[in-house]
Amino acid sequence: MAGSSFGTLVRLTTFGESHGKAIGGIIEGIPAGFSLDYNQIQHDLDRRKPGQSAIVTQRKESDKVQFLSGIFDGKTTGTPIGFTIENEDQKSADYTELQKAFRPSHADFTYQQKYGIRDYRGGGRSSARETACRVVAGAIAKQILAQKNIRIDAFVYQVGSLKWTGEWKSELKTISEANNVRVPSEELAVEMENLIREIRKEGDTIGGGIRCVITGVPTGLGEPVFDKLHTELGKAMLSINAVKGFDFGSGFDSISMKGSEHNDLFTTDGTTKTNFSGGIQGGISNGMPIDFRVAFKPVATLIQEQDTINEDFEAVKLMGKGRHDPCVVPRAVPIVEAMAALVILDYYLMQKAYKK
Amino acid sequence: MAGSSFGTLVRLTTFGESHGKAIGGIIEGIPAGFSLDYNQIQHDLDRRKPGQSAIVTQRKESDKVQFLSGIFDGKTTGTPIGFTIENEDQKSADYTELQKAFRPSHADFTYQQKYGIRDYRGGGRSSARETACRVVAGAIAKQILAQKNIRIDAFVYQVGSLKWTGEWKSELKTISEANNVRVPSEELAVEMENLIREIRKEGDTIGGGIRCVITGVPTGLGEPVFDKLHTELGKAMLSINAVKGFDFGSGFDSISMKGSEHNDLFTTDGTTKTNFSGGIQGGISNGMPIDFRVAFKPVATLIQEQDTINEDFEAVKLMGKGRHDPCVVPRAVPIVEAMAALVILDYYLMQKAYKK
Amino acid sequence: MAGSSFGTLVRLTTFGESHGKAIGGIIEGIPAGFSLDYNQIQHDLDRRKPGQSAIVTQRKESDKVQFLSGIFDGKTTGTPIGFTIENEDQKSADYTELQKAFRPSHADFTYQQKYGIRDYRGGGRSSARETACRVVAGAIAKQILAQKNIRIDAFVYQVGSLKWTGEWKSELKTISEANNVRVPSEELAVEMENLIREIRKEGDTIGGGIRCVITGVPTGLGEPVFDKLHTELGKAMLSINAVKGFDFGSGFDSISMKGSEHNDLFTTDGTTKTNFSGGIQGGISNGMPIDFRVAFKPVATLIQEQDTINEDFEAVKLMGKGRHDPCVVPRAVPIVEAMAALVILDYYLMQKAYKK
Amino acid sequence: MAGSSFGTLVRLTTFGESHGKAIGGIIEGIPAGFSLDYNQIQHDLDRRKPGQSAIVTQRKESDKVQFLSGIFDGKTTGTPIGFTIENEDQKSADYTELQKAFRPSHADFTYQQKYGIRDYRGGGRSSARETACRVVAGAIAKQILAQKNIRIDAFVYQVGSLKWTGEWKSELKTISEANNVRVPSEELAVEMENLIREIRKEGDTIGGGIRCVITGVPTGLGEPVFDKLHTELGKAMLSINAVKGFDFGSGFDSISMKGSEHNDLFTTDGTTKTNFSGGIQGGISNGMPIDFRVAFKPVATLIQEQDTINEDFEAVKLMGKGRHDPCVVPRAVPIVEAMAALVILDYYLMQKAYKK
Repeated sequence: MAGSSFGTLVRLTTFGESHGKAIGGIIEGIPAGFSLDYNQIQHDLDRRKPGQSAIVTQRKESDKVQFLSGIFDGKTTGTPIGFTIENEDQKSADYTELQKAFRPSHADFTYQQKYGIRDYRGGGRSSARETACRVVAGAIAKQILAQKNIRIDAFVYQVGSLKWTGEWKSELKTISEANNVRVPSEELAVEMENLIREIRKEGDTIGGGIRCVITGVPTGLGEPVFDKLHTELGKAMLSINAVKGFDFGSGFDSISMKGSEHNDLFTTDGTTKTNFSGGIQGGISNGMPIDFRVAFKPVATLIQEQDTINEDFEAVKLMGKGRHDPCVVPRAVPIVEAMAALVILDYYLMQKAYKK
Repeated sequence: MAGSSFGTLVRLTTFGESHGKAIGGIIEGIPAGFSLDYNQIQHDLDRRKPGQSAIVTQRKESDKVQFLSGIFDGKTTGTPIGFTIENEDQKSADYTELQKAFRPSHADFTYQQKYGIRDYRGGGRSSARETACRVVAGAIAKQILAQKNIRIDAFVYQVGSLKWTGEWKSELKTISEANNVRVPSEELAVEMENLIREIRKEGDTIGGGIRCVITGVPTGLGEPVFDKLHTELGKAMLSINAVKGFDFGSGFDSISMKGSEHNDLFTTDGTTKTNFSGGIQGGISNGMPIDFRVAFKPVATLIQEQDTINEDFEAVKLMGKGRHDPCVVPRAVPIVEAMAALVILDYYLMQKAYKK
Repeated sequence: MAGSSFGTLVRLTTFGESHGKAIGGIIEGIPAGFSLDYNQIQHDLDRRKPGQSAIVTQRKESDKVQFLSGIFDGKTTGTPIGFTIENEDQKSADYTELQKAFRPSHADFTYQQKYGIRDYRGGGRSSARETACRVVAGAIAKQILAQKNIRIDAFVYQVGSLKWTGEWKSELKTISEANNVRVPSEELAVEMENLIREIRKEGDTIGGGIRCVITGVPTGLGEPVFDKLHTELGKAMLSINAVKGFDFGSGFDSISMKGSEHNDLFTTDGTTKTNFSGGIQGGISNGMPIDFRVAFKPVATLIQEQDTINEDFEAVKLMGKGRHDPCVVPRAVPIVEAMAALVILDYYLMQKAYKK
Repeated sequence: MAGSSFGTLVRLTTFGESHGKAIGGIIEGIPAGFSLDYNQIQHDLDRRKPGQSAIVTQRKESDKVQFLSGIFDGKTTGTPIGFTIENEDQKSADYTELQKAFRPSHADFTYQQKYGIRDYRGGGRSSARETACRVVAGAIAKQILAQKNIRIDAFVYQVGSLKWTGEWKSELKTISEANNVRVPSEELAVEMENLIREIRKEGDTIGGGIRCVITGVPTGLGEPVFDKLHTELGKAMLSINAVKGFDFGSGFDSISMKGSEHNDLFTTDGTTKTNFSGGIQGGISNGMPIDFRVAFKPVATLIQEQDTINEDFEAVKLMGKGRHDPCVVPRAVPIVEAMAALVILDYYLMQKAYKK
């Protein structure tokens, strides 16, 4: 458990700091013989990319992935897929201040405590830049799942206290992907974008929530008792930067529900009338849409002066600068999809192994 | 990932169905030379045990653990600790109905789909009875952590819409453990117990929430980027039966917060003035109390007639009977503590490995 | 890596000391729906059992396995199979001497150094008694493999300098199992048995070698580059008590061979004319018989007085007593088969997972 | 178990085919704060490099490693070390023949069978070129171990039937590294080099053996019962290309020994008079030198015409060409050291975790 690997049969290992030469990863266990759609991979990277719209960070990174192995004549060979993404935005000149000061609610303090040394430029290993590698791996997993008619749709359902409470249908993806916020409502998109712009003017940030719905999942995915399907999905989501919570189906709302309201009654085709279970019962998929939510805290970097301490535990003032996101969720949508895809593909293969 | 093991350096593997001969487990990686307090282990088992109070299931199980290995002259030897707990309440006579019908929102349907066969008596492997094994392992881990002044306190903070919103202090544990609900307020205890009694009269059930606070955790625990401390805590909690969600620190509430409210400012002793981070920043403990919440759905077994289907997907009626919990959280408190203890001990040893 | 688990998709975890209450284990990942033949399991346990013939230890252990979970109506359910084997021969009275003295070439010294405490009765955790658990798990794996026409035959090929150099055919199994040594030659069986009896009279012991041939293995098993099929077979064999070496196909003999002699030329049915590769090329099975050898050292317990040291590093004399094996290989044959079966089944399932 | 990762606390994952853009890897778990000696890493790469002497393949590869992460100001940061080595010798023009024909005793056939597709250029993923990544990781591990006075010396002890049978002393390393064969005897070096040159003239190849001695290992390393120290060393060695066997201490020679000869008697300083145990008893290091041997088969590529089959299982003739090694062991010495170093460092950290 050295910490930078995820998955069992399909396994992603990543490396890289935000201001090193490159980030990258190795994807093991992708079955052989699949033709990769490179445009689709780049498309997901672009959905995560800085500078993609007016309400995200304006840093410039082209985020072009270079594949180094595991692909031959455009097809996967079953061997590990190694890849790198170069870091272009490596301005490290202005980090002398950060070298000494711990930014509040960042990982500066904890990395220093844990390792006794840290790459203080842009968060180093703790930077969300690492998630670009997850998007590459997830985009490949999504393509393979798509061939099995498994579809993964994440979208923003909340920014601040603005919340979308509609019923999800896959057709809504067109709407959610057409606005900067990635919310499945044109009206809310405008409201949320205005809120984010306002927050940014104050040099402040705001939290957000992402929901993800996975359809076409066969019954039987998930390994009880510790490696339940939602257990691994939860682990996957909680590993994403800035995530503070995960729930599925009725989630935290189930606390105030009665069993008689909450039970999902079967119909005679084996589906259920309601889906409070979020597609998972006893840790195993039941064929209904898998449905979960992920809570993201407000970004810790503010364009405001904050009190903090330095490495000698002396009080200092720190003025945030740079080009950071006022709200992280619009760019986090493809990351959620990527991690979900890796989990589902892993369990899909696992199920094949154990099936008679 | 066969699914019944949890942890890396400290690893629990469990076996057993609710109506088999026995359940049990193997705990690997417990350091050598610790004197075990067997009473403390039994005490935690008793906190989880059926029949312990008027508001839990009245099934009778003595839940006595028998240790088979790994202990010599009362001390751990560093070798695997094998143990069993016999199943006493093995009435399997009345399961002919269950043999055919899938109980709504249980794991009957998904186990049948996944395995093509299931032990239908009392939920079989999907029964929460398995968690008794976790309590045994967790009680050992808690004892070792206690010697390092790490303390784990879980308690009920919500039942239905009754919610405790006070500030946690370790002194409150005496109160929470003194009432049947395990909530740190005598007044709320009465209200919640009344609510649960009422719900039970209706043959219904109600959801609940548990919060857990861990103090004395040194800085530096957690392995970025996938095996963050909260990632593994989340996985641990989500693996518990009936759990629908996990969040830590500000959790889902952070969605509607601004960064300027949410950032935890440092004081010159390295602690923070607030603890929205829940003791974890960038996946690594920062020395503040670790603080998380777990959402439990209402128990699916109702003492009411419900519509469902049988193995041939025909509509049938099913009348719940037996002695089930109207609300699961009072008995789930020691399970949450147990899983938390296993995670913290695992990461504690991990940290020792990597420290210079 | 707490050390008492083996395998990935099929995973055995064992516990138990030779003189504790019981040994046992948990087998995860056995596919659902298989009807177990209990007699076959007991048969393999009996092949490993003390007292089975005149040339093995005369300790009395009935080695009856009790299954506690994972089986319903005689069929596997896909959930973990927990089992125990009671220790009957628990005479611990005479261990005061051992409590202080380290037996030469045993694990007494290293366990004491590692753990600072040890169960000194009969070797504790380091006793070969643990391998009975492997035989249980392996017997189950063998039954499943047999349904896929995969057959595992181990036999003794060498005792001291007496060596069988014939060509293996599965028919020889009848011969090897009909004599006490388990060598596929009636003549050599007599010679070897005589040698072992003579060695025992001297209070001495002798080494031996086991060869294992696995037929019916489909092509494609094995995961390059670190988890090659022979890599995992090697790990499995080297984990058995008293094993000092492992080679496959031409093995150590290949050192003095030329490539032009050693290359296995293909025939037009995809098989090879020779099998110096031992059924594995590039870590992946090629469909030819898998063929490997395992070297066992002479048992360290002698019925002779030996010089040694005690816990205070003082020179002491130690007189071996008890009922130990003069040569370990006759009883080790089913252990080799068991570990081989676990590896092959694990990789068989793995292959199913990755196959298109 | 996707196959391209090795280790637990220290974990190497590699990627890359011989004729892709680059090979590389990710090393997780290297403790923070170590100053790396890059020259030492390159030195080990040079010891493995083609073209280093007259008796190895004359392919030209500069094998320069580029580190991409995990190092800051020349020191390790505790985060994953990502690295690449470019493939310079990418002549793929002449592979049309290989595209169809399976080279005898290579992995062509098995990769094709397993994956249904293969990068046929130069062996693709099955090429020993992958081991350059192991040398990089191992060189880092060796440096860290050196600071703890743990020293790893591998050398050639046999080529064909020429065998060195002397007693190893660390001073002999100077001799073994001064000759092209890497044997610790100047006389044998001449004989072996002559043999290899002769073999090469015939277009043939010859097998060889490497021995490895590790000194300064503290007592207590190794995790019984499956993850014994020699178990993992064996796995590590068997994963190296062309390896057919592994034994330690007395190894296969122990088969014909008596216990009274073989037992390692203690002296009053806790060491043993002999070292037939090879530094490991019961799977745990005893403080004596760890001592093991690795058998390498003759290289399968011959500069001779051979009968084989093509993808349609038709008989074809194949004429080996190119610049291959007549004997693999001189270049394999640093690979053996590298893998040994990774195992020892992993278990060293593990031991720290479990120590009180």
